[in-house]
Amino acid sequence: MTSRLSQIFEEHPGQCISGEAISQQLGLTRAAVWKQVRTLRSQGYEIEGARGEGYRLLGRPDQILKDDLFSRLSGNGLFGSFEYFPVTDSTNARAMELAERGSLHGTLVCADAQTAGRGRLGRKWVSPPAINLYLTMILRPPIEPFLAPQLTLVAAIALAQGVEDVTGLSCKLKWPNDLYIGGRKAAGILAEMAADPDCVRHVAIGIGLNVNGLDSDFPDDLRGKATSLRIESGKRHFRVDVLVAFLNRFSVAYREFLSGGFLALQPEWNRRSLLEGKRVLLRQRTEAEWGAALGVDDEGVLIFRKDGVTRSEKVHSGEIIEFER
Amino acid sequence: MTSRLSQIFEEHPGQCISGEAISQQLGLTRAAVWKQVRTLRSQGYEIEGARGEGYRLLGRPDQILKDDLFSRLSGNGLFGSFEYFPVTDSTNARAMELAERGSLHGTLVCADAQTAGRGRLGRKWVSPPAINLYLTMILRPPIEPFLAPQLTLVAAIALAQGVEDVTGLSCKLKWPNDLYIGGRKAAGILAEMAADPDCVRHVAIGIGLNVNGLDSDFPDDLRGKATSLRIESGKRHFRVDVLVAFLNRFSVAYREFLSGGFLALQPEWNRRSLLEGKRVLLRQRTEAEWGAALGVDDEGVLIFRKDGVTRSEKVHSGEIIEFER
Repeated sequence: MTSRLSQIFEEHPGQCISGEAISQQLGLTRAAVWKQVRTLRSQGYEIEGARGEGYRLLGRPDQILKDDLFSRLSGNGLFGSFEYFPVTDSTNARAMELAERGSLHGTLVCADAQTAGRGRLGRKWVSPPAINLYLTMILRPPIEPFLAPQLTLVAAIALAQGVEDVTGLSCKLKWPNDLYIGGRKAAGILAEMAADPDCVRHVAIGIGLNVNGLDSDFPDDLRGKATSLRIESGKRHFRVDVLVAFLNRFSVAYREFLSGGFLALQPEWNRRSLLEGKRVLLRQRTEAEWGAALGVDDEGVLIFRKDGVTRSEKVHSGEIIEFER
Repeated sequence: MTSRLSQIFEEHPGQCISGEAISQQLGLTRAAVWKQVRTLRSQGYEIEGARGEGYRLLGRPDQILKDDLFSRLSGNGLFGSFEYFPVTDSTNARAMELAERGSLHGTLVCADAQTAGRGRLGRKWVSPPAINLYLTMILRPPIEPFLAPQLTLVAAIALAQGVEDVTGLSCKLKWPNDLYIGGRKAAGILAEMAADPDCVRHVAIGIGLNVNGLDSDFPDDLRGKATSLRIESGKRHFRVDVLVAFLNRFSVAYREFLSGGFLALQPEWNRRSLLEGKRVLLRQRTEAEWGAALGVDDEGVLIFRKDGVTRSEKVHSGEIIEFER
């Protein structure tokens, strides 16, 4: 119920709204409205005003609250459950465990901080509290296991779109799983799956997005390489705003993927490619070679043309460890 | 400690062994030996004899006890942990959950009964208590995800070998995951994995083997199609004996697979193929077609030649729903 009140405030930013208007919109007595205002304040909302006068929203907490979140998702019904952890080892680990225990398609797992955030290739994802987004989506897509890696690219497109919606920043994608803004990495995506040879049982698509950190918040080895929405845009963002924008974009992209395959999303991915046509140093297993990154094909596989060779090759798994800027 | 005593008995089947001989072998006092005999009896061992006389093993329980099991595994160190459940939903579900929480490579998950045993394609595996083997191995193989389905075939070979070691029965394999004896299905294998696009994080290889059931123990729809080691051999078998034989065979096959790929095991699989060269009705997705099953290639993929066509095709995923006998 408080989510409907906070929505009214958010639809009238900075404006004073009379208690009478609110009580009419919500169908509540003035006393009940007052109680809800008190509840919102206890959740961290700064609300000016007193009984009998109007109310004005001055500030809201940078928190992800289930009711608030779900009230702002567009109504396609993909997301239905929300598991929130003030701190956990890894939202992907929690999600894989929850999925193993039967959690439904469309469950969201979110944390304020991670103690063992996972990156690709066994690396850690730096996950301090309060400033970033750590989210994993549990999905049970009706697809064969070999198609599952394409979901990483689908999520990357939606993340780029969602971040642009909120911040206006231009977002690029680095194959296979990174989001770049201003030439630096702002987010990583790690999709994991549980499958038998015939079908995917569930996937956990995890996202770590740096939202409000400053350069000083990154460890030494990441400084200058990693960035955040705040560093790039010069202002703070509400994590829930970015989350809502991403989830709404993902719902659409996911439906397109299921009906038309990755083919339907390939142009959008390639349009956003950080490395389109650039020379890159690609590592596969232990070997690294320079060549040109020629975008992804209709299966999300990287097309790579090694230097000095005319024929390009398909790369299913690998890492771009350096690239021409 | 009792496992060493039970081992001594098992090395001298039906023989009377003096308390003096046992106390010397184990380095224990006669009184301590007597206490251990009492412990074994409490575990279901039938032991004839009394203090001061000799002991004779008349019968042992059809149970899987950790110490007994591990003392009989050949020393390659693949298996190190054992989780036993009198009853659980599914050993694969438990294993995937344990692995998600960090259980080690080489963990065995075993149950006396399953309430929701899993088969392929979302089917149930009939799992009554006390008479069958329900086992899942947790492995963390250093392989890429697309190779993981081959582990089903590796386990199938080892299961056929292990069952033959104990029972002398001839075991055939039906692609991709069934063990047949005397033309009927005796076991199924279900491998599940958790992976990201780059690597397998863990696999759970589950085995359901019908050991001591009679025809009357199967539900109506399986009668005549399913069999057990007891039905085929005419006698009861200790589940732990079959388990030990399988695990020892699997340790060897797994090492061969890691060093030489499935190529090293392909001839053994094809030699045991139930359907080699036979006409089969193969279903892929919704369509079913008759053709010839021509064995598996060096990646464990079924080679299938559709009726009326000269060129054979590779089948990664599918089901053989009927076959020429």
